[in-house]
Amino acid sequence: MNKIPIVTLLSDFGLRDPYVAEMKAVILSISPDACIVDISHEIEEFNIRMGAFILASATPYFPQGTVHVAVVDPGVGTKRHPIIIQTERSFYVGPDNGLLLLSALKEEVSHVYHIKNPKYMRPKISTTFHGRDIFAPAAAYLSMGCAPSRFGPEIEDYFVPQFAKPYVKEGELIGEAMYVDGFGNVVTNISLKDLEKLETSMGDLLRVRIKRKTFDMRFCPAYGDVPVRTPLVIVGSHDFLEISINQGDASKGLNLKVGDTLGMYFC
Amino acid sequence: MNKIPIVTLLSDFGLRDPYVAEMKAVILSISPDACIVDISHEIEEFNIRMGAFILASATPYFPQGTVHVAVVDPGVGTKRHPIIIQTERSFYVGPDNGLLLLSALKEEVSHVYHIKNPKYMRPKISTTFHGRDIFAPAAAYLSMGCAPSRFGPEIEDYFVPQFAKPYVKEGELIGEAMYVDGFGNVVTNISLKDLEKLETSMGDLLRVRIKRKTFDMRFCPAYGDVPVRTPLVIVGSHDFLEISINQGDASKGLNLKVGDTLGMYFC
Amino acid sequence: MNKIPIVTLLSDFGLRDPYVAEMKAVILSISPDACIVDISHEIEEFNIRMGAFILASATPYFPQGTVHVAVVDPGVGTKRHPIIIQTERSFYVGPDNGLLLLSALKEEVSHVYHIKNPKYMRPKISTTFHGRDIFAPAAAYLSMGCAPSRFGPEIEDYFVPQFAKPYVKEGELIGEAMYVDGFGNVVTNISLKDLEKLETSMGDLLRVRIKRKTFDMRFCPAYGDVPVRTPLVIVGSHDFLEISINQGDASKGLNLKVGDTLGMYFC
Repeated sequence: MNKIPIVTLLSDFGLRDPYVAEMKAVILSISPDACIVDISHEIEEFNIRMGAFILASATPYFPQGTVHVAVVDPGVGTKRHPIIIQTERSFYVGPDNGLLLLSALKEEVSHVYHIKNPKYMRPKISTTFHGRDIFAPAAAYLSMGCAPSRFGPEIEDYFVPQFAKPYVKEGELIGEAMYVDGFGNVVTNISLKDLEKLETSMGDLLRVRIKRKTFDMRFCPAYGDVPVRTPLVIVGSHDFLEISINQGDASKGLNLKVGDTLGMYFC
Repeated sequence: MNKIPIVTLLSDFGLRDPYVAEMKAVILSISPDACIVDISHEIEEFNIRMGAFILASATPYFPQGTVHVAVVDPGVGTKRHPIIIQTERSFYVGPDNGLLLLSALKEEVSHVYHIKNPKYMRPKISTTFHGRDIFAPAAAYLSMGCAPSRFGPEIEDYFVPQFAKPYVKEGELIGEAMYVDGFGNVVTNISLKDLEKLETSMGDLLRVRIKRKTFDMRFCPAYGDVPVRTPLVIVGSHDFLEISINQGDASKGLNLKVGDTLGMYFC
Repeated sequence: MNKIPIVTLLSDFGLRDPYVAEMKAVILSISPDACIVDISHEIEEFNIRMGAFILASATPYFPQGTVHVAVVDPGVGTKRHPIIIQTERSFYVGPDNGLLLLSALKEEVSHVYHIKNPKYMRPKISTTFHGRDIFAPAAAYLSMGCAPSRFGPEIEDYFVPQFAKPYVKEGELIGEAMYVDGFGNVVTNISLKDLEKLETSMGDLLRVRIKRKTFDMRFCPAYGDVPVRTPLVIVGSHDFLEISINQGDASKGLNLKVGDTLGMYFC
């Protein structure tokens, strides 16, 4: 573990309201040496899937021992559990609604604990803001080396979300749009390895089917390998295939949204 | 006081322009160990009331000795004073326009100083950016333990804004909408204690009057206690009553804006 | 150099996506004591000129030895070089496309290096995200005192952008709108010194020509020196003349955009 513990934050709170600052205030009150890093606070409200994706994109780059706190929590105040997931590399703190698991599964889950011990919470727990009153203090104590088993009992029945996997059907690799970034790049759930499932050998031209339309796109390493405003398929920075337009917005240009199915094969 | 001094920043600068970074650069040039925490930079332009509210929401969670800098300053460059407010817990640095006082009054004001000593300012003072040239250096020197009396004379005639207080009229508790957060939750100026002023005993159903319409809303502890898209009244995370819609936007759904009057009593 | 090295970040990534956090994670994995400060991540996509302007506004306020990383990089993955610019005060890390040079030229360029040594990069270099895989590690190693010559060969043929300079023609000082800030203030490329080039002596009323219209505006030190909603010319916080409207939006009100020409002389 680093000498200076890192605590990351992800939420759907936005940056206008005081909520993120309140979480940081609570963390620094308990763990004054913590180095707090924002992953994103612009997750769409209650969009657990989007939060899980962004969290899982960023977490692999943080050092061993980092504590990740994530709050996209439509069920706050109800009986969904607050949990700590301990993996081989990191700790994850947040609601038991699937938000943390995409990241945690990449690192092998060691233990999951139900946060119950009031000793590690704020003295008064609001029903609307567990981020500040439960998750932030838990993360702060973890960052100071407090053993996760002290927060509450280990549980086995935590929520495991299902993730769509790409598959080949009639010679076409079928996947879906997982995320649209701020540039309009469409990240799919298709990895380079998945392309090997196609019977045809890898080439540099892909026929991509989006809804009922097909597009022939170059499969190439850099945006600049195609002319400006031209679509292409690229291996993105997280090793998933991305549909992009060089200096353009692929999501708008190709009318491609999160959850949309797409098919592809080499021409 | 913590070994690592915390300096918080709040402004209406937004995060696109270089202004916030310039303030941080000035602070770190003077006080390299300072731990800078952003409260919000998305206060509406010149909206002192909104800035005061967000500041006062976040400040109670920061540790003793924190230095809070806030800049919502339509009068920059005119004769409004730059001030330091010292309270039992914290220091507040900013313009004397009411922005700091809602927070400071919660903590008992000990002294207010007019920042005048050029020794603790940047060598050249712009007329448009006292945040960088006066407030940031003052905060940095305070965070290093510099006594506030060294910045200038103590003053008594600082600006004290008036805050609306809830009251009971004809059996109805009358308050107003103080803030709408990013989720559309409407924070009122009515606390749980204010509800006790009503003659009827506390129940779990409130009749809420917004303009000329009345709504019966459950008064309950968690959003999830009512069906999705249903309005409710909840004690928010800052102990004020909030009008919310479970997984919806109460401000839009109920046409309720900051400053609007609302009445309520138990059915 | 400070004991705690400062690393600043500027990009066109926005704050919603995980990209900024990934860069911070890489920096802190290599240089755990680094103090990371965001300058702006809301540069318009691929707007190198805007990025250069905001970077050059903020950098003068950071202490000696600061490492600035900037990524506005439409050519990522093509043959444009990743570079380090060493100046008398700072290090600049980013693409060789002009983004860094406006800042660096203010501080006198000592050396420019082409980053080539894979030892100071991430083990696997994506073609779409050099910010994370090349620039962030380079900045982290620089912040730890690694000599810039170890990253690759010194180069002389780096890209030097051209900057428009104000000039006098027929008794009128001609400049252009360089930047519009979040308040709508229009920053020009005209400094106080440039005004001295006018043959007429300095007064307090300027005739400003915007496209085919002329406006008489007060040239005064504070926004509050003119009535609310009135245009004025002011020396901005970076010593350039700004066209502003007291508590209003000058860009909208006067239909003045980045790149627009404007002329002025004292009445």
